[in-house]
Amino acid sequence: MGTFIGHISPGLAFVSFGILYAFKFSLLVLRGEKIPLVSPPRTAGLRGCVKRIPVEGVMKIVYGTLAVMAEFFYPPGVYKMILFNKEKPDYPFIHPNEWQHVTMYAYFALSGWVDVISQACLPRRLFLFESIAIAIAFYIEALLLYNHMHGKQQVENSVHALLLFVCFLVCLVLTVELWRPNDPILWFTKTCLVMIQGTWLLHAAFILYKPFTGKPWKADDIANLMFVTNFFCWHIALNILLLLAFFLLTACWLSWRSRPGGNGTKEMFVFNLTRADGAVPRAEYDKLRAAEEETHLLQECDP
Amino acid sequence: MGTFIGHISPGLAFVSFGILYAFKFSLLVLRGEKIPLVSPPRTAGLRGCVKRIPVEGVMKIVYGTLAVMAEFFYPPGVYKMILFNKEKPDYPFIHPNEWQHVTMYAYFALSGWVDVISQACLPRRLFLFESIAIAIAFYIEALLLYNHMHGKQQVENSVHALLLFVCFLVCLVLTVELWRPNDPILWFTKTCLVMIQGTWLLHAAFILYKPFTGKPWKADDIANLMFVTNFFCWHIALNILLLLAFFLLTACWLSWRSRPGGNGTKEMFVFNLTRADGAVPRAEYDKLRAAEEETHLLQECDP
Amino acid sequence: MGTFIGHISPGLAFVSFGILYAFKFSLLVLRGEKIPLVSPPRTAGLRGCVKRIPVEGVMKIVYGTLAVMAEFFYPPGVYKMILFNKEKPDYPFIHPNEWQHVTMYAYFALSGWVDVISQACLPRRLFLFESIAIAIAFYIEALLLYNHMHGKQQVENSVHALLLFVCFLVCLVLTVELWRPNDPILWFTKTCLVMIQGTWLLHAAFILYKPFTGKPWKADDIANLMFVTNFFCWHIALNILLLLAFFLLTACWLSWRSRPGGNGTKEMFVFNLTRADGAVPRAEYDKLRAAEEETHLLQECDP
Amino acid sequence: MGTFIGHISPGLAFVSFGILYAFKFSLLVLRGEKIPLVSPPRTAGLRGCVKRIPVEGVMKIVYGTLAVMAEFFYPPGVYKMILFNKEKPDYPFIHPNEWQHVTMYAYFALSGWVDVISQACLPRRLFLFESIAIAIAFYIEALLLYNHMHGKQQVENSVHALLLFVCFLVCLVLTVELWRPNDPILWFTKTCLVMIQGTWLLHAAFILYKPFTGKPWKADDIANLMFVTNFFCWHIALNILLLLAFFLLTACWLSWRSRPGGNGTKEMFVFNLTRADGAVPRAEYDKLRAAEEETHLLQECDP
Repeated sequence: MGTFIGHISPGLAFVSFGILYAFKFSLLVLRGEKIPLVSPPRTAGLRGCVKRIPVEGVMKIVYGTLAVMAEFFYPPGVYKMILFNKEKPDYPFIHPNEWQHVTMYAYFALSGWVDVISQACLPRRLFLFESIAIAIAFYIEALLLYNHMHGKQQVENSVHALLLFVCFLVCLVLTVELWRPNDPILWFTKTCLVMIQGTWLLHAAFILYKPFTGKPWKADDIANLMFVTNFFCWHIALNILLLLAFFLLTACWLSWRSRPGGNGTKEMFVFNLTRADGAVPRAEYDKLRAAEEETHLLQECDP
Repeated sequence: MGTFIGHISPGLAFVSFGILYAFKFSLLVLRGEKIPLVSPPRTAGLRGCVKRIPVEGVMKIVYGTLAVMAEFFYPPGVYKMILFNKEKPDYPFIHPNEWQHVTMYAYFALSGWVDVISQACLPRRLFLFESIAIAIAFYIEALLLYNHMHGKQQVENSVHALLLFVCFLVCLVLTVELWRPNDPILWFTKTCLVMIQGTWLLHAAFILYKPFTGKPWKADDIANLMFVTNFFCWHIALNILLLLAFFLLTACWLSWRSRPGGNGTKEMFVFNLTRADGAVPRAEYDKLRAAEEETHLLQECDP
Repeated sequence: MGTFIGHISPGLAFVSFGILYAFKFSLLVLRGEKIPLVSPPRTAGLRGCVKRIPVEGVMKIVYGTLAVMAEFFYPPGVYKMILFNKEKPDYPFIHPNEWQHVTMYAYFALSGWVDVISQACLPRRLFLFESIAIAIAFYIEALLLYNHMHGKQQVENSVHALLLFVCFLVCLVLTVELWRPNDPILWFTKTCLVMIQGTWLLHAAFILYKPFTGKPWKADDIANLMFVTNFFCWHIALNILLLLAFFLLTACWLSWRSRPGGNGTKEMFVFNLTRADGAVPRAEYDKLRAAEEETHLLQECDP
Repeated sequence: MGTFIGHISPGLAFVSFGILYAFKFSLLVLRGEKIPLVSPPRTAGLRGCVKRIPVEGVMKIVYGTLAVMAEFFYPPGVYKMILFNKEKPDYPFIHPNEWQHVTMYAYFALSGWVDVISQACLPRRLFLFESIAIAIAFYIEALLLYNHMHGKQQVENSVHALLLFVCFLVCLVLTVELWRPNDPILWFTKTCLVMIQGTWLLHAAFILYKPFTGKPWKADDIANLMFVTNFFCWHIALNILLLLAFFLLTACWLSWRSRPGGNGTKEMFVFNLTRADGAVPRAEYDKLRAAEEETHLLQECDP
């Protein structure tokens, strides 16, 4: 829906995914864990299946399905699930915006179903299939955003072009992740980009439908177009800071949970941080550390 | 030919290649096989040569040659194999569309000849040359599609731009495959893209030359342009489902064929599926499995 | 500031960074050193912290902060740190250029702070974070340059498009460096591009605000547009020569410093030069050298 | 020079480089050789130096210098080595086309000088520097071609856009070659692209300045634009066939030269051909061959 609520709700959805990703990947990095490429087999039975249902998948299904419903039947009394107008002689297509949005949301819901089936129902998790499903959802979003700009005003186009730019970067990252699923730089780039998409959609809703001055932004004012880009750049900084905050929160929580062996935990964090892309294997790092400590002891003895 | 049949026939060709690829690569993945980079030498003699002629190559030659013939001599009585009009004073070029199509089809036929020569006639298969030949055919297609849009209406351009987008992705995949010929993700991406190209050409034929309402799509209606993208997005989902169906069919057929040792077959499938890009070597996986089974036995003994 | 001084000052800043990089990376290559991915721990205490403050970081902070100040408060008496005009009824945005420049400079200052904190204050250097911070600063610059061209004349746009092109290449190099931080080809490409950006900004200031003929360049003269590109190409050659000069200077200085063992130094230089990307490991090279010397001796004995 | 001879001469230059590359890389592949990353040291003295001067470098210097001279002083009596018209009041720039061409040719000449210095004069060859120099020359060509199209007609732009496309691909290949200097696929792609650039420039000269009909191509005729692309596609096929011919010629010449051990030579060719990118190491291939021959012997004994 090209309305205020139609931009706020996907914005909130992307923000919630961003937060989920931020905590998930912070945990993985701080613990030095990796996504297992071959998952262990699972206990069969409905109970185990239900317990294994992933939050992320359910969120995608719920958000996606609700959004599809809203496009067709919201506000109540409306019924837009029709492709063409049968009353006119040449059956022209109607509701093009709604059908584009529905297509977009449906792919995200589909990706959710793939997550749930792969993680809960199948004998083994098919991680690659989940990655492909979410990558396709973002590709579809990019494709539709690219072809969404017909007959719109420049401010709206500028806002959407920046959204498309972020979405395209997400597609790139997800494509590379098919071959490098365990690269922390890609994890956090993805997280940050999804968060930027979220907060930018929230901001866009206000710019396009509820400007703070009460008057719509003039499309022919160059200052307006330049400030759209400017605000977008501030969103980048904002989301990087948010991501950092989430990371530190996770680190605090982890070290609080493992207080007795707190020192080792801190040491592990430092290791996992210093070179997040895992280029330095643990063994080598430990050797380095041992040499350092020895030097340290000698220095303490020396004077 | 810028006609209904001129879009239907390449569409069917691409669909048939897509189906062929789907079964071929499903078999390779399910059996855990790879394309051998150095092929074994072949028995000489005409009989062996004929037996080795690949279906794919013959299909390319037949389709390509027929299409070239059709461009020049169809409908019967027409003769378009002339470059310029000798009757006019400045010899203007004629039949530009036909010559572009002929060029395109000829490169596919050429790729077919390279396949046949490499797989049937030469003492050893030159796999790299086959890959290069088909990659060039798609590059030529992309180049011609890109320069094909002069003086056309917006709906037609939109349809062709999406086709160009798919074709460009095929080029990318085929280029990467020159260096990574044994990557299942690339295999199936290629298969799916070729199938999308096929079904989209079929749909395009109806949009442009046989609209279901009986009246041509209005080029100045924004709703029409938006629905073109929308339909394309649905083609993506459709072809992914088709590809999945072909894969499952192949799996069923394979496990039915090897019924006595059915359990091992299923196990092998699971392995080949869990991480299709082969990042996990077989030995490591077997070790993992052994450990799992032990745990399993212990659990069974325990209570 | 869209003024003469507003192009000269960032130009000088980029040139100074370029020179700094040139000497820094020349030293690393000539000594055969690498940037350590896991840095040794540091002595705590304020003194050690102050001693470790990196020049590069301080330069970024000082330049960035001064530039932000200048945008808002220069010339003295001006106050531009306001987003919209409260006196007009619909609160229009004002000073869009200034806010775009401020955003750009602020990100460079931020990158400086990350450098200082990581290299001086934290228990261990977080090299990856520094790389990410500077990469983001250049991405922001590219994004703002791209959206900076509204309502300008063609000569100015041409000048800025070339700047954007260089900036985009810097972004590419910095992105690849996240995964390959120790590639000398990338080091020197980055250095050269930053230097080109610097000298080009200096030249642009003269083209746009102080043309040597005293009259502004005509925007509608094609010859002018073509010479903009031409001058840019000459800047590339100029900066490559400068970079080479800086490299040779460093080599001279290094070999002068280590005169007693001068021969070994020269030998080491030759090694580090012959294949700067380090593809040939030292051991293999030494073996090669030994074999060569033997042949040499035999040749000397022979006649 | 925007003249017939100004397109014919660079065309011939590129064709001659293409032929040189074709034989050079065919020899390397057929002999299974690689470009040594660390070259052996050279005998000093002027005689050795002169003997080592590479053909390719001299060709670049001669062609480049001649072309620069021609731009400035051809036809005789002309003197264009002036930047601006001193007689007019505002000193407008003149000869923009000539200065762009001069810049382009000068970079190729520079690359030739780097080749000569590195291969003949320095104590060791600096292969990386040669690669960088030629890559920069093509980047400059692409940049100038991109900014060369102001105020031209559509047919001329179309011809130059295709040239730019080829030039851009050469830049890509040369950039990748900085890190992968020994990849045969890249070698032959580069060779073929340089040859295409050459023959296309030759063809372009006739299209733009000596059309076979005697009358210039009409710029507003869509058929003309479409045939430009069409002819370009035929050039691709033509040059691939030429490249193949040069390769086979080299193979014949090599096997004729080593007739006594002809069988081993042929065997080596087959090996070097089957997987030209060297993914299969020689040892593995030999093992495969041995097993094959054994089977062969058994088959012969069997009946």
